[in-house]
Amino acid sequence: MDAAQKPPEQVFDWLDAEADRRAEAGLTRRLNPRPASSAELDLAGNDYLGLARDKRVAGAAAAAALRWGAGATGSRLVTGSTELHAELEHELARFCGFQAALVFSSGFTANLGAVTALSGAESAIVTDKYIHASLIEGCRLSRAGIAAVAHSDAAAVEHALATRRTDRALVVTDSVFSVDGDLAPLTELSTACRKYGAALLIDDAHGFGVLGEGGRGAVHAAGLAGQPDVVTTVTLSKSLGAQGGAVLGPRRVIKHLVETARSFIFDTGLAPASAAAALAALGVLKSEPDLAGKVLANAARLSEQLTDAGFRVSRPDAAVVSVQAPSADEAVGWAARCIEQGVRVGCFRPPSVPDGISRLRLTARADLSESDVDTAVKVISACAPPRAATS
Amino acid sequence: MDAAQKPPEQVFDWLDAEADRRAEAGLTRRLNPRPASSAELDLAGNDYLGLARDKRVAGAAAAAALRWGAGATGSRLVTGSTELHAELEHELARFCGFQAALVFSSGFTANLGAVTALSGAESAIVTDKYIHASLIEGCRLSRAGIAAVAHSDAAAVEHALATRRTDRALVVTDSVFSVDGDLAPLTELSTACRKYGAALLIDDAHGFGVLGEGGRGAVHAAGLAGQPDVVTTVTLSKSLGAQGGAVLGPRRVIKHLVETARSFIFDTGLAPASAAAALAALGVLKSEPDLAGKVLANAARLSEQLTDAGFRVSRPDAAVVSVQAPSADEAVGWAARCIEQGVRVGCFRPPSVPDGISRLRLTARADLSESDVDTAVKVISACAPPRAATS
Ligand SMILES: Cc1ncc(COP(=O)(O)O)c(C=O)c1O
Ligand SMILES: Cc1ncc(COP(=O)(O)O)c(C=O)c1O
Repeated sequence: MDAAQKPPEQVFDWLDAEADRRAEAGLTRRLNPRPASSAELDLAGNDYLGLARDKRVAGAAAAAALRWGAGATGSRLVTGSTELHAELEHELARFCGFQAALVFSSGFTANLGAVTALSGAESAIVTDKYIHASLIEGCRLSRAGIAAVAHSDAAAVEHALATRRTDRALVVTDSVFSVDGDLAPLTELSTACRKYGAALLIDDAHGFGVLGEGGRGAVHAAGLAGQPDVVTTVTLSKSLGAQGGAVLGPRRVIKHLVETARSFIFDTGLAPASAAAALAALGVLKSEPDLAGKVLANAARLSEQLTDAGFRVSRPDAAVVSVQAPSADEAVGWAARCIEQGVRVGCFRPPSVPDGISRLRLTARADLSESDVDTAVKVISACAPPRAATS
Repeated sequence: MDAAQKPPEQVFDWLDAEADRRAEAGLTRRLNPRPASSAELDLAGNDYLGLARDKRVAGAAAAAALRWGAGATGSRLVTGSTELHAELEHELARFCGFQAALVFSSGFTANLGAVTALSGAESAIVTDKYIHASLIEGCRLSRAGIAAVAHSDAAAVEHALATRRTDRALVVTDSVFSVDGDLAPLTELSTACRKYGAALLIDDAHGFGVLGEGGRGAVHAAGLAGQPDVVTTVTLSKSLGAQGGAVLGPRRVIKHLVETARSFIFDTGLAPASAAAALAALGVLKSEPDLAGKVLANAARLSEQLTDAGFRVSRPDAAVVSVQAPSADEAVGWAARCIEQGVRVGCFRPPSVPDGISRLRLTARADLSESDVDTAVKVISACAPPRAATS
């Protein structure tokens, strides 16, 4: 095709055509900025332990901004590493049971860095096909040969490892899948890796703080923390109520990431306020080891009651409870009616759902009371008639 | 090759081999966490306006953490958009002269989002080969056909546009290149884009706050702000002293990013403290429009004196002044001796330098005095004998 001349006003006309297509499919998305406080019951956020607004956590963030400045001022290898970052790394590694940790500016960039630095053109990657978008982007950047196998299927992973054509291999999975909240078969995946000499990378974004002894995460619960062939990523933005991400693993893996992970090297360090908030939240989690259990109890209650009410509900292995909707449009309508009634729920539609099925995504929090859960179920049942869900 | 069995302790042995190779080439990197305060003269950070520790900026971060919580609690499309984010977007767009803006958790993810969402398999991308790593990662993720042409060569860009095989095309460049601090030929690039119906994406990370009227950036200075075929990215982590990034452009581009950019949709929103800090820093910049000029004056003084002292120095178009070193090892040695003498300088080695030449990377700040600059030059001259640089 010839490189046609085109008036500058028309260069982005194709975006409008794409917007029209999304609108027709009921897939328009809009930002809805929220105020600093509201009376809504929030079952949409990922602040699982209710720590984002905890005075100890927010107070630590505030104090750190004043003491260390608002930003890290440079990439971690230049001026962006403070003693605060080092302390957070030390404490995260210790708490979760790993030799070392490395803090990134987000869970997203932590995943990019871990996947790319631990694979490469001479490596095979085998993934669960429902892994988080940030892991998928890491795979796409990796130059590795990629086999994305059926969801939660350790035998398929094993087969892909057995038939790979490279010496090196990396298996990549979420621990708790972000949309449905189901747990990956971590033990079986580790067995497959061991059998075929592969490394195992587990994104514990939704397990950390919620699963395992005192919230040490799904990897710790599976007995895989600190293993020489296991690397874990966590976010600081969910259970720790802050921002950022971290990779946990053997010391030599962390050293390798410092020296080669492009999303680490070419990115400004995490803001001191966020690092301090995560550190304070970790301290709260250590001193209140029953927080994790409260999340699980609330998730179970929520799921049971919604199931009883006739919804198609995922079995919650952690904090996330997912409710299937018959269409994208209805999911949007349900969520809109819920918020009118004072309950905020997540509304997930393609392409943010791995299987194309639109859903309400609900999250349990440690600081929800039983009556909060009951209220939420009542509102959801009224706003999202279960007959529509099960018809 | 057969998928060989391998003890788990050996799965990461290849990392040690790579570390050995880096050590032999003098390319080992190590984190050096810094304390909260020190007497050093910092010429390494990107806090160009000296606002990271400004009381108005750090104070706004602290107040926001207390008012809004330590984290955004979810992705921007779920619970992670606050009125603070919306206000920051409004003010950034207005100040820089664009219809709209979208805030990301980092400049890195802003670049990923802008490049991928504005290109795709049906698009060609033409880039300067020295663009920032985050833009390169965006290109790799884009599925577009990519032509990376000679540095700062608008004719080569024009040729690539003329000979492309797709209708759609996106030209991608830094405004100010991060390592040498030189300015891209923005006017010529825009002319080439207009001639061949391409969109122009400019990363103004190192121009924003430093160039243009009152610090409105290099894109504004070139008269390209608000043009219907121009999109700009900025970071909140350099001149604004905080963390985060933003994309600025026509309203329909921003709408498209909200709905399709994976590094936006699948990432927790920027922490309120960082958003508030950036907003406060923007306020300072508005009320003190001569800050940008101070940076430029200091950069010019620094560059002139180092040139007079016999160094090979880049011509500083913005805040960055780059000094070539004869080898990676010597660059490390120079930087280490400077810090011993109380001056912190950046040390850039492969693969963080586009041309393989190791450098000291110095940054001018608005809050350096003339005597600070003179001291820095004296220390650098003593620690990095210019005869070594010019031999
Ligand atoms: C499974 C998973 N991994 C990684 C991320 C990215 O983490 P962050 O939002 O901190 O960038 C998320 C969510 O955002 C997630 O759900
Ligand atoms: C040119 C350029 N673009 C983008 C970035 C990424 O911005 P951030 O560090 O805020 O992620 C940087 C530096 O880090 C940069 O130098």
